[in-house]
Amino acid sequence: MRALLFDVFGTCVDWRTGINRAAARFGLPAIADDWRAQYQPQLETVRSGKRPWVRLDILHRIGLDVVLRDHGLALDEAERDALTKAWHRLDPWPDVVEGLTRLKANSIIAPCSNGHIAQSVSLARHAGLPWDAILGAELAQAYKPDPRVYLRSVEALGLRPHEVCMVAAHRDDLIAAAQVGLKTAFVPRPREPEGPPFDADIVAWDFLELV
Amino acid sequence: MRALLFDVFGTCVDWRTGINRAAARFGLPAIADDWRAQYQPQLETVRSGKRPWVRLDILHRIGLDVVLRDHGLALDEAERDALTKAWHRLDPWPDVVEGLTRLKANSIIAPCSNGHIAQSVSLARHAGLPWDAILGAELAQAYKPDPRVYLRSVEALGLRPHEVCMVAAHRDDLIAAAQVGLKTAFVPRPREPEGPPFDADIVAWDFLELV
Repeated sequence: MRALLFDVFGTCVDWRTGINRAAARFGLPAIADDWRAQYQPQLETVRSGKRPWVRLDILHRIGLDVVLRDHGLALDEAERDALTKAWHRLDPWPDVVEGLTRLKANSIIAPCSNGHIAQSVSLARHAGLPWDAILGAELAQAYKPDPRVYLRSVEALGLRPHEVCMVAAHRDDLIAAAQVGLKTAFVPRPREPEGPPFDADIVAWDFLELV
Repeated sequence: MRALLFDVFGTCVDWRTGINRAAARFGLPAIADDWRAQYQPQLETVRSGKRPWVRLDILHRIGLDVVLRDHGLALDEAERDALTKAWHRLDPWPDVVEGLTRLKANSIIAPCSNGHIAQSVSLARHAGLPWDAILGAELAQAYKPDPRVYLRSVEALGLRPHEVCMVAAHRDDLIAAAQVGLKTAFVPRPREPEGPPFDADIVAWDFLELV
């Protein structure tokens, strides 16, 4: 493989622990799962064309407003903005930094995430993710599983889809990547929804086994 | 400074030595300066709107064809394509890797180059440039000194122009960046054209002094 593209939320970083920890700092209960449940509906407003492409911070913030309203929780505007930035500072699963570092020796590694560039850079600096480039949604101005996100990322590397492998903990992400010709690697993660049945080209327990 | 954006050709890497070495491997004389002389005229075909945005590989290849024709030198198509890829493998000036590594501790660092993403990734892997992200021309679909290249790079980081410093060995690059609000750092390099007079915010002998 000339390049490996990675899903990030759930696959590289543990969003649930990081978001619940940040929520607790604002005196909130563990809202991570409810907030994440707003993720696909908010992405869908862009995928459906109802809303032009906007950065994921904007969609996360809208989702947070829904969660706080549903739970009857109070938080002012500045606190809501600050809490939204918690998605920029999430810890990696224990195998990720060593795994990516070793994978980088032989292949280009980059996120193909729905996170925007600023969020991906912050997260990489926080978690020590040694990416070669930040690819994904913002470059394509679209959200996964829109095929343009995978294809624009592959094209940016000057490669063809079969030279690139998508790595994710969610099979729906891999199915979309495979449909446009990428190779696929499935790496399950604790409590991440695995998605529908799909025979990935590689199944690995973690990034070290992926090496 | 929240982020530092870097010119690459001439500022981070020594294109002249690398290109002449590659040319020698193809049995050619030292054509680096003549090839580089085709650079601005080819960029101008995009800046003027005569040509839609294309990757720098395409423009480098067109420039190479002109140089070979002018010198009466023979090289087949595959060799011309291979030689064009020499712009993906250039060595850094001696202070660059340590300087960037130290600067990265406190600021986001990224190229704001006319190189495209694939070329910038190859170059970073070859030269060991520890970028946080690849910004610049391809993201903006424009070529420096078009102000959109600087502004799109700043916007991608979620920052405002005054929070970002452009670092270059060419004052015309810095003048264009300053005109849209960026801070500027001038780092002269051997045999690089310095450009017109301009008071940069910082003048440093090399990247270690810039730290």
